[in-house]
Amino acid sequence: MRFSKMYVPTLKEAPGDAEVISHKLLVRAGMIRKLTSGIYTFLPLGLRSLNKVAAIVREEMERAGAQEIFMPSVQPGDLWKETGRWEFYGKELLRFQDRNGRDYCLGPTHEEVVTDLLRGEVKSYRQLPINVFQIQTKFRDEIRPRFGLMRGREFLMKDGYSFDADDAGADESYKGMFEAYKRIFSRLGMRFRPVDADSGSIGGSFSHEFMVLADTGEDTIAVCHGCEYSANLEKAVVRCGQPACTAECPAIEEVATPGKHTVEEVAEFLGVPAERLVKTLLYVVDGAPVAVLVRGDRELNEVKLKNALGAQEEPVMASPEQVVAWTGAPVGFAGPVGLKVERILADNELLAANDYVAGANKAETHILHLDLARDAKIETFTDLRMITESDPCPVCGGRIELTKGIEVGHVFKLGTKYSKSMNATFLDENGKEQTMIMGCYGIGVSRVVAACIEQNHDEDGIAFPPPIAPFEAVVLCLDPRKEDILGKAEEIYGMLRSWGMDVLLDDRDERPGVKFKDADLIGMPMQIVVGGKGLKNGIVEVKDRRSGEKSELSIENLERELLEWRKCVWAGWGLANCDETEECR
Amino acid sequence: MRFSKMYVPTLKEAPGDAEVISHKLLVRAGMIRKLTSGIYTFLPLGLRSLNKVAAIVREEMERAGAQEIFMPSVQPGDLWKETGRWEFYGKELLRFQDRNGRDYCLGPTHEEVVTDLLRGEVKSYRQLPINVFQIQTKFRDEIRPRFGLMRGREFLMKDGYSFDADDAGADESYKGMFEAYKRIFSRLGMRFRPVDADSGSIGGSFSHEFMVLADTGEDTIAVCHGCEYSANLEKAVVRCGQPACTAECPAIEEVATPGKHTVEEVAEFLGVPAERLVKTLLYVVDGAPVAVLVRGDRELNEVKLKNALGAQEEPVMASPEQVVAWTGAPVGFAGPVGLKVERILADNELLAANDYVAGANKAETHILHLDLARDAKIETFTDLRMITESDPCPVCGGRIELTKGIEVGHVFKLGTKYSKSMNATFLDENGKEQTMIMGCYGIGVSRVVAACIEQNHDEDGIAFPPPIAPFEAVVLCLDPRKEDILGKAEEIYGMLRSWGMDVLLDDRDERPGVKFKDADLIGMPMQIVVGGKGLKNGIVEVKDRRSGEKSELSIENLERELLEWRKCVWAGWGLANCDETEECR
Repeated sequence: MRFSKMYVPTLKEAPGDAEVISHKLLVRAGMIRKLTSGIYTFLPLGLRSLNKVAAIVREEMERAGAQEIFMPSVQPGDLWKETGRWEFYGKELLRFQDRNGRDYCLGPTHEEVVTDLLRGEVKSYRQLPINVFQIQTKFRDEIRPRFGLMRGREFLMKDGYSFDADDAGADESYKGMFEAYKRIFSRLGMRFRPVDADSGSIGGSFSHEFMVLADTGEDTIAVCHGCEYSANLEKAVVRCGQPACTAECPAIEEVATPGKHTVEEVAEFLGVPAERLVKTLLYVVDGAPVAVLVRGDRELNEVKLKNALGAQEEPVMASPEQVVAWTGAPVGFAGPVGLKVERILADNELLAANDYVAGANKAETHILHLDLARDAKIETFTDLRMITESDPCPVCGGRIELTKGIEVGHVFKLGTKYSKSMNATFLDENGKEQTMIMGCYGIGVSRVVAACIEQNHDEDGIAFPPPIAPFEAVVLCLDPRKEDILGKAEEIYGMLRSWGMDVLLDDRDERPGVKFKDADLIGMPMQIVVGGKGLKNGIVEVKDRRSGEKSELSIENLERELLEWRKCVWAGWGLANCDETEECR
Repeated sequence: MRFSKMYVPTLKEAPGDAEVISHKLLVRAGMIRKLTSGIYTFLPLGLRSLNKVAAIVREEMERAGAQEIFMPSVQPGDLWKETGRWEFYGKELLRFQDRNGRDYCLGPTHEEVVTDLLRGEVKSYRQLPINVFQIQTKFRDEIRPRFGLMRGREFLMKDGYSFDADDAGADESYKGMFEAYKRIFSRLGMRFRPVDADSGSIGGSFSHEFMVLADTGEDTIAVCHGCEYSANLEKAVVRCGQPACTAECPAIEEVATPGKHTVEEVAEFLGVPAERLVKTLLYVVDGAPVAVLVRGDRELNEVKLKNALGAQEEPVMASPEQVVAWTGAPVGFAGPVGLKVERILADNELLAANDYVAGANKAETHILHLDLARDAKIETFTDLRMITESDPCPVCGGRIELTKGIEVGHVFKLGTKYSKSMNATFLDENGKEQTMIMGCYGIGVSRVVAACIEQNHDEDGIAFPPPIAPFEAVVLCLDPRKEDILGKAEEIYGMLRSWGMDVLLDDRDERPGVKFKDADLIGMPMQIVVGGKGLKNGIVEVKDRRSGEKSELSIENLERELLEWRKCVWAGWGLANCDETEECR
C-alpha cells in the first residue's frame, strides 16, 4: 500500500478526552475516530490491525475444532426472559422495541441465542460435542465509557460456546479452548498470563482470565516466576508454609499507648516490628458482626473473607459506632481478647508465631505477649490476606511478582446455567434426557489492539508486534521527487511484497522529518529508510521500532541482509517469522 | 473440511414460513437458521458462502481504490436530525435511547456517519477524492420481513461512499464503482444486469441498480439483446421510430357500441384490431384532472406520466364519479373529443397513425375516424407507455426482452444532499469554501447469497457457482468403513486441497443415498464419488452439479483428468479458474 493513496490522518495532538495511552495513540496514529461516547470508527490502519487479530483468533479457534458461525446482534427479549437475565442484566443491556412493540436487545453476549439455536437441533449425544464461535460486534451500555477501545460501548468480540454431553467432555472442551487462547496470545506477540479467576481454588478450576501485562492495567495480578501460576490479586492463594509456633510466651500484660492508633505508631512507640502486631478488623457480614485478624504488616483480602464465611453479600467495615459498641473503646484499640464479637477469624500466618501486640479493647491501651491459640477464641485460622511479593508461589514455591494486567480474554465453564433454564437437552446413550454442559469463551478483539498498545509504546508512539501491526514494514522514501530514490524505494517495496509481507511505502511529498515521526507514531516494526547519504554510499538504513536499534544494510546484498534482519526483528518479539533458525547477525 | 466434524444440519422439509426457494433451500441445506422474524443466524456453511461473496467484494473495492473502514452500527440520533432523516425515515429506522436518555438508531445506512467522519478531517481539495467502504451488519425494521435473506431486518451489507471536490471527479468515482460492480458480479458467476434507475433518462444517468436475473425476482426489467441497455420496466424508454401519419382520414362519425366497455369488446364488436383504438385514461395528478391517451393494446406507465407532468405526488386514477362528471357518460366511453378535461397527454406512438376508434363521451357510443392531430386538443405527445418485447431497444434498436430481476446492488450519485446539510466543506485551489460531492454504493452481501440461489437451483437443491459455493467440491466417500475406499477418498481430498481448493470430504457413516442427496441439496459445483463398482474398475465418477453431467475419470490419470474437468465445470459457469485456456475434453 502507498501512503499517498491511503487515508491515514495522523495528528500531533491527542484529543482532550483521551485518558489512556492507547486511546491517545490510536487517535493520533489515524487508526480510530470517535463517533460518540464509547463508540468508534476504525479507519483503514486501525481496521488492518483489528483484522489481523481476528484472523489469528479465527485460525486458532478452527485449529481447536471450533466452527465459525454468525449470530444476529439484535436479540429477542423473550430469550433473555427465559434465563432471567432480562431482569438481572441491568442498564448495560441496551433494550428497545421494534415497530410492533416487541422487546429486543442489542447483544452484549450470545449465550441465550446460541442455546436457543442448538436446543432446536441437537437431539442425541451423538451430535455432541459442538463448539461454535463468532467474531461480532457487541454492545454494552457502559455507565462511564472511557479509555477508548479499552472500555467502549460498541466493540468487536470473539465469543465461543461449547456444548458437551457430560462433565468430562466439558472439561476437555474447556482445556482445548484454554490451550487455543495461549497459542493466540503467544502468536500475537503479547506478554500475557492466564490467571485463575475462580475464587480461591487452584487446579480443577474452570474460569481463567487472560491478562496482557501492562503497567497501565486496571487489574493487579500475582505472577509466579517459577511456574505458570498467575492469579488476580484478590484470588491469589497464600500458602502457609510455616509450622504452628510452639515457643514459650509470657502472660498477657497491658501497656499504655496514649495517642497511638495505627500499626505504624504503635510499633514505633513499642519498638517492635509491625509483623509482631495483630491487626483486628471489624466487619458486618450478612448483617452479623465479624472480627478478622491479620498480621500488622499485612492487608486483609475481603474476597477471601467473604468466601471463608460463605457470605451472600460483600463484607462491610463496621461503623465507628459499632466499633465502640463491640470493643468498649474508641476506634484504634480493638483486639481479639475480651471483644464482644462472637465470630473471630484469623489469617493462617498468625499461627506461625506468638508473643504478639494487639489492641486491649480499652482506650489508649494495647496488650503484650498475646498468644492467639492460648488467649483468644478463634473460630478458624485460614487464608485471609492479600498475597505479597515476599510470599512463595502457592503451586511451586517460586518467586511471586505483583504486576498490572488488562483482561483480554476469559474462558468459563458455565455448566448447565443456561442449558437448564432454556431446556437444552438431548438423549444420552441410554435414551435418557440429559442437559447439555456448556462453556463460554470470549476475546475482546478490539480490546486486544488497545491492550497491545498499552503494553508496547514509548514517547514517540506505538511499537506494534509484527503480527498486529497494520503493516509489518514501512519503506520511507525520503525524496520521492528524485527518480533514483523513488526507484530504489519501489524496488525494495516490491521485493518485500514478493515475500508476502504487508508493506507500506511512504511515497508522500513530505519532509523526511514528517515521515520519520509518522513511522514511529504508527509503530510498524520494521523501518527501511531509502535516501540521503546512505543511498549514495550503497547503504540502506533500517530501524527496529521496538528496540530503536539502527543497522546499515548494503544494497549489494540487500535481499539476504533484509531477510536476516527481519528474522532478528521478529526474534526480538520472541517470535519466529519462518521455520529456519539461523543466527542473528 | 470433514463433513463428520462439521455442523451441517440438513433437513428434508423446509420450514412452514418459507415462501421463496432461496429461503427454503438455505434452511434445508443447513446454511441458516431463523432467530426471529427477519433475523437469521449463519451456520458454518452459510457463513462460508457469505464470506466468499464479501471477499470478492472487498478485493474489487480495493482494486478500484476504495479503502475499507469499519463504522459503528449504533448511531447518534443527532446526526440524523442534521440531515432531516430522523423525521423522514419512518419506522424502518430502529430508534432507541441509551441509559442517559440520548437518541440513537441502528444504522440502516451510513451516510450521516461517514459524512460526519470526513467533515472533521478533510480541509483541502488536496485530500480529495476519498472513497471508503465497509462490510457491516445493517438493520431495517421492515414492516413485513419475508423471503428469508431476501428481505430480512438484519443483514450484511457493503456500503461505500465517495467524496469528490467537483462534479467531474464525482462522475469519475461513480464510473469506477460502476465498473467494479460489474467485475464483482461477473466474478461471482451470476447472470446480472446493471439497470438504469434514473427516471427516464438514458446516458448521463447517475443511478444504477444491479439486478440478478431470476424468474422469481420481484422486479421486471427490460433487457436489450444487442447492447448493454437495461432498465426497470417503469423506467424503460420507448423510442418512437415512426414518422407522424399523413394519410387521409374520413370525418368523425359516431357508432353505437351497446354494452361494449373494454378495448377487447369494442375491437371485436367493430371488427378492428386493438391497436386501432385509443384508450383514454382519466387521472387526478397533484389535485387536477388529466387525461392520458395510449394505444388500445398498450399499458400506461404511471412513472412516466408523473415525470412528464413534473408532478409532486403519484397520479391517482379518477373515481367513477369523476369520470361521469368529466365525460358526461358512464365509465367506459371516455374519449379525447369533447372531454371536459383541460390537460390531455398522448403517447408518442399515437402520432404514427390516424383513423382511430375512441370513446364518444356518450353512453353506449364510440367514434370512428379519429385523427388526434386534427380532432383533439393534445397538450403533448410524449413517451408515456410501458415498453413491450416488440419495441426496439432505445439505444441500439436491438431486441428487448422483459425479464425478472432481484436488486443486489445500487450505485448512486448523491451530489451534495448530505454534505450540504451536514456542512462537509473544503477549501478549493483558490481558497474558496466548497461542498463535497458525494456518491454512495451498496451491495447486499447476504442478499447476494439468496439471489444466487434464486437464480441457480433445481428440484434437488442449490447449484452454486464455484465462487459462492461453501466448498468448490465435495468428495463423497461412499463407504468410509472400507479402508481402500476411505484411503482413496482421503488421497483425492488431499490432492484437491493441495491445489488450494476448498473441499468437503463426506466421510460420514451414512448411506450413499443420504450423501448424494445432501451433496445435491448443498450444491457444491463438483461432486467426486469414491466407492462402489467404479473404484474396483479403476474409475472415479464425477458430477457437474449445474449441468448434472456425469463423467468417469480414470484413477491412473486422475490428477490430469480432474484438473481438466475442473476447468470444464468453471467454463460451464462462464468462468475461468486459471489462466490457461485448454480445450474441454
